[in-house]
Amino acid sequence: LLPDAAMSRESLVARAVDVYRSYGFSPIETPALEYAEILLGKGGDETEKQTYRFEDAGGRDVALRFDLTVPFARFAAEHAGRLGTPFKRYHVGTVWRGENTQRGRYREFMQCDFDTIGTESVLADLETLLVTHDLFVALGFDRFTIRFSDRRILGGLLENLGLGDSAVAVLRSLDKLQKTSRARVEAELATVPGADAGKVARIIELAAMSGDAAGILDRVAPLVGGNPTGDAGIAAVGDVLSGIEAAGVSPGRIVLDLSIARGLDYYTGMVFETYLDDLPGIGSCCSGGRYDDLASLYTKDRLPGVGGSLGVDRLLAAMDELGLSGQRSTWADVLVTVFDDEGAVGAVEIATTLRRGGVATEVYPEARKLGAQLKYANGKGHRLAVIAGPSERDRGQVQVKVLASGEAVDVTLEDLVATCRRLLAAHG
Amino acid sequence: LLPDAAMSRESLVARAVDVYRSYGFSPIETPALEYAEILLGKGGDETEKQTYRFEDAGGRDVALRFDLTVPFARFAAEHAGRLGTPFKRYHVGTVWRGENTQRGRYREFMQCDFDTIGTESVLADLETLLVTHDLFVALGFDRFTIRFSDRRILGGLLENLGLGDSAVAVLRSLDKLQKTSRARVEAELATVPGADAGKVARIIELAAMSGDAAGILDRVAPLVGGNPTGDAGIAAVGDVLSGIEAAGVSPGRIVLDLSIARGLDYYTGMVFETYLDDLPGIGSCCSGGRYDDLASLYTKDRLPGVGGSLGVDRLLAAMDELGLSGQRSTWADVLVTVFDDEGAVGAVEIATTLRRGGVATEVYPEARKLGAQLKYANGKGHRLAVIAGPSERDRGQVQVKVLASGEAVDVTLEDLVATCRRLLAAHG
Repeated sequence: LLPDAAMSRESLVARAVDVYRSYGFSPIETPALEYAEILLGKGGDETEKQTYRFEDAGGRDVALRFDLTVPFARFAAEHAGRLGTPFKRYHVGTVWRGENTQRGRYREFMQCDFDTIGTESVLADLETLLVTHDLFVALGFDRFTIRFSDRRILGGLLENLGLGDSAVAVLRSLDKLQKTSRARVEAELATVPGADAGKVARIIELAAMSGDAAGILDRVAPLVGGNPTGDAGIAAVGDVLSGIEAAGVSPGRIVLDLSIARGLDYYTGMVFETYLDDLPGIGSCCSGGRYDDLASLYTKDRLPGVGGSLGVDRLLAAMDELGLSGQRSTWADVLVTVFDDEGAVGAVEIATTLRRGGVATEVYPEARKLGAQLKYANGKGHRLAVIAGPSERDRGQVQVKVLASGEAVDVTLEDLVATCRRLLAAHG
Repeated sequence: LLPDAAMSRESLVARAVDVYRSYGFSPIETPALEYAEILLGKGGDETEKQTYRFEDAGGRDVALRFDLTVPFARFAAEHAGRLGTPFKRYHVGTVWRGENTQRGRYREFMQCDFDTIGTESVLADLETLLVTHDLFVALGFDRFTIRFSDRRILGGLLENLGLGDSAVAVLRSLDKLQKTSRARVEAELATVPGADAGKVARIIELAAMSGDAAGILDRVAPLVGGNPTGDAGIAAVGDVLSGIEAAGVSPGRIVLDLSIARGLDYYTGMVFETYLDDLPGIGSCCSGGRYDDLASLYTKDRLPGVGGSLGVDRLLAAMDELGLSGQRSTWADVLVTVFDDEGAVGAVEIATTLRRGGVATEVYPEARKLGAQLKYANGKGHRLAVIAGPSERDRGQVQVKVLASGEAVDVTLEDLVATCRRLLAAHG
């Protein structure tokens, strides 16, 4: 990544981490390289095909992690006693996937996950949605929608219909509702053993319900009511909705959408996806949900939890497209130019003064023509240039130039920090 | 890494990045995985033995980077035109080395490099030392010493002694002066072709010079003077010393030490190492220097530069040993307890209010016994607990408890943010 892209990513991750921290999530880190049997223990053929796996010099079978969930499961199992529960963690890290390398697709990308484990409380479900909400606000998105559901509602309907054992197949089909036609999903559902036309219609009716959450819950009740699984799901959704209101979330930002199913088998309760209203085509940018047991492969302790995963690279692409990315390629606001070799020491003094005053400041390293130095500053995105030629030096002054407007003021060294701060605030 | 260690590392890297930014360095990122021929093109057998190298699914010969310098050289060569010069970058990233894999150790660690390329200016040398100085101050170290030299001074002496062609061998021996006895270094130097006892004595005399910089330069002049390489080195050291003074660096923090040679062949001018006065045994925690050409392997453009590398994991170990690491395992200052299910929504409201007021706040996810929730907060390192039981709720108040002292105050919701801020400031 060149500096402008690396700065965007750095700034996105920093803002995400600030939100995680503000909710009491703590960081963990795990190695990128682990024994293949640990990373691949639970994954299917598809995962195995995508994983970079090799033998190290000691003859061990190792692999690069392909997500942050599996390493977290191993980590949680290993350290459960020391961590205590509830345990809330975030993890920013690189993952590797080898899919379609011939088509030149990303094989190395960054994930940014957050999870709360060791509690079945609906408060943790709610908080997962609030964190996601705050993330998108912090990233500068005005128009986004978090769509959530609770798998137990559909599960209750399926149990009522005598299709409880086919839940996974039904969920996988429903997950395509947003990507393909309703007719195709109906045809796929009709192939589920025991699913006649009437049952398929009921399933679609439930998944396609729209409108305000209270209205949806009213219409859901007769379809699902009386079934303990379904009732638990309806109650949890009600609690989540109250919490969203208590947190003062603007209406329409977190909405109930029973078609959200998430294809993965392991979700057991709340599930959610996040869409950018202006770029629906790029798909969900933050998804997740509640799972019954994170680490069954590695420990006998049951570790239920809930969490989400932020699609860092997808979001960066979206921010580029929406013009939310910065175009600068420096974090420094000020460039101190160097007029001649005699002025070099003075430039260092000026820069030191500015940095001590909290203003990030670069010194041009050579006494080149002023025009070349200002061109450099314009190209990098500095906002102010400080010029100290011999005439200014003789007067004990420096000139501060606003690069965007060309405005220039002469100031004494004592006034330099205050002047730069004022100009930066005005030309932010 | 468990949360306390991960927080220390996060915080160390954030402070380092702040310093880099304050000098106008910009971030870049390169893939961890590159073609083996690119990463290993310049490395010797030793590097090759330590590198994780394997064939990917597409049959390509790839490897995990073993440092950040080689990928930067490739990157700079590839993008030189777009980046322009001077180009100042920092790069925080994981590197892998497989040494001693037979002993079950594979090593994955973090590097944090900064470089200025495309200029031969002594200002960039000076700035490299100032950045290093500011890094250690920002990390909270009171007692550290940056030792620098210029290889051309010793080079000038060797040319005067007719040993110019043996510079690399001499440098490698001198590099051991701090680790082994002077007698052993003398014995090793005596094996360099053409180095008689008199010449060895001269070399050691130069390397062992101590005292203030002006005094050293006075004594160096007759040994090296008249040799153009040596004179250039003396002049550059003089300029660096002026700049250090201009930047107001406390005396003794950046000192001239002609024994600093750095073993690596590619340094050509200024070289430096950084030691913690209280932990000399752990070796240099930030080292680097000037090189003539970064990317000769990848481009015909000459890219001279200067930079340094921060030993992140070594510094973390040092901070642990010196008691500079935090012991907390949460970034959140406040824990909002949940008294009963009815209070859960209220807890979310309270937490939202605090977060909007800039106070990082965690909600305990379940209505457990208060004692268990306070124990959790003490274990994690929260500073305040907010308690809202039914009696407080009835009065429209909450209780704020300072965990360290047990002090408790009742406040209205309107006063909550201000009260928490005041208590946090007082119990920092």
